Amino acid sequence: MSATLREALQPYLDEQRSVVDAEIEHLLPPAGAYPESIHRAMRYAVFAGGKRLRPILCAEAGRLFDGDAPGLLRLASALELIHTYSLIHDDLPALDNDDLRRGKPTCHRVFGEAVAILAGNALLTLAFETLAAPSADPDAEHQRLRIIHEIAQAIGTRGGMLGGEVVDLESTAQAADSTTLDYIHAAKTGSFIRAAVRCGAMVANAAEADLTRLTQYGEKVGLAFQIADDLLDVLGSKEMLGKAVRKDGAQRKATYPGLHGVEASQRIAAGLIDEACEVLALYGSRAERLREIARFLIARTS
Amino acid sequence: MSATLREALQPYLDEQRSVVDAEIEHLLPPAGAYPESIHRAMRYAVFAGGKRLRPILCAEAGRLFDGDAPGLLRLASALELIHTYSLIHDDLPALDNDDLRRGKPTCHRVFGEAVAILAGNALLTLAFETLAAPSADPDAEHQRLRIIHEIAQAIGTRGGMLGGEVVDLESTAQAADSTTLDYIHAAKTGSFIRAAVRCGAMVANAAEADLTRLTQYGEKVGLAFQIADDLLDVLGSKEMLGKAVRKDGAQRKATYPGLHGVEASQRIAAGLIDEACEVLALYGSRAERLREIARFLIARTS
Repeated sequence: MSATLREALQPYLDEQRSVVDAEIEHLLPPAGAYPESIHRAMRYAVFAGGKRLRPILCAEAGRLFDGDAPGLLRLASALELIHTYSLIHDDLPALDNDDLRRGKPTCHRVFGEAVAILAGNALLTLAFETLAAPSADPDAEHQRLRIIHEIAQAIGTRGGMLGGEVVDLESTAQAADSTTLDYIHAAKTGSFIRAAVRCGAMVANAAEADLTRLTQYGEKVGLAFQIADDLLDVLGSKEMLGKAVRKDGAQRKATYPGLHGVEASQRIAAGLIDEACEVLALYGSRAERLREIARFLIARTS
Repeated sequence: MSATLREALQPYLDEQRSVVDAEIEHLLPPAGAYPESIHRAMRYAVFAGGKRLRPILCAEAGRLFDGDAPGLLRLASALELIHTYSLIHDDLPALDNDDLRRGKPTCHRVFGEAVAILAGNALLTLAFETLAAPSADPDAEHQRLRIIHEIAQAIGTRGGMLGGEVVDLESTAQAADSTTLDYIHAAKTGSFIRAAVRCGAMVANAAEADLTRLTQYGEKVGLAFQIADDLLDVLGSKEMLGKAVRKDGAQRKATYPGLHGVEASQRIAAGLIDEACEVLALYGSRAERLREIARFLIARTS
């Protein structure tokens, strides 16, 4: 099933990525803008590849309620700036020390550590600038503040991305237990994916009950995605993934296959995706894209 | 005059710093909150000293129009989180490589580079979370978005703090001309100080004409402050400043005394402070604190 699913969904994902990339192109300062090095580094990192998963999830969550919600595409694209900031910093020598990302030299390998650190900061800052930018819709200001607040929490230290990164970093040298691993995955990856779908729905004026369902979808998909990432490090090849593999084991990183084994991890991921799809049952065929994306995320791991 | 002025203003500055620090204490996660290392690093860096200049300027600018403006103290304190983020990252080995800040070991010397990078990111993120936090004043939502946008621009790459840092970094190895130096100072230091006073005034519902005056005050004070900083690197001692001195010359950094000489730099700084005070003439004695702070900033350099 997985190869077929991936082929069937690819044209849709490619088209979505083009739409998001066109908006990002508009958000980023031109490559020639002064000072050039940081703008080139920002663009290099953002356009070095990537599926645009978070923007696509955000936009699809919004489309479930209002396909033409003003600001939906801008919000979705700002999320990718934040995602890229986290990747640039994660790859730094002081953190994961990666030379390769999506098949290309990492940002600090091309522009040096100093510019890479600042380019990461700049993408995070530009994301907030974008989210707070003047808009033609004064009615939406309450919602926009709420979205900024939710995103900042999702990437912060208390159960958010930075919290997960710190615990991940510190659990590298010693074997982590399953509670720690679940914290890392929920905080480092899950919280931002949850915020992506929730904020997409908020822009489209979804009701609280809808947000609750999308919260569940986001949490389940986020965890499954991270388990899939762990699995691909074991099952994938450098050619397939465009980055070094078998790093988790070599660094004694806490992972799902490491703690639970490959088969149990595959079962858990598949179960989470089933549950995530089930949560959206109420929306019928309107939510089919969100279900397809969920299944797509674990397609290479079984 | 300068020694007397400093003594006269010190009790006021100490009291203001206490008020700001109490609010920051409230904004930061407790030191024992999980994951502890990043929260300890954030607190270490924020509470390692510092004059709280930006919060005090912000709060005084607000008091000029409405001393009880809700959210003024919170905004002022959030600015210090951003300032501390910039210091942590500036001190990193890949950037200025400083071991000492305000007389204490720098954040990365105590917590390691990885945690220092993430702690800087966390302070920036927490600042935006704070600025967007739910408030009891729905009328102020338009203003709060405007403030978030203005601050993000002031610390961004196009004429903002990050832009200034990049050009500063890249001008280290070669002699910079006066245009480049003015860009560095205006972008790296000036833009954020300008935003601090403007946003304080915005929270207090200042009119556009008032904002224009405070913009001028902020720009002049910001540049004078940076010239004073350059001068102190030449004139001060490690004991006086709590950090390494004569670093600018050793690193061939672009500075005012390096380009214009010490005496001309002192004259330029004093002239800027006179002009900044002049801009506030309209407000009479109500603006006296802002004038005193301006004079205080260059008090050790003449």
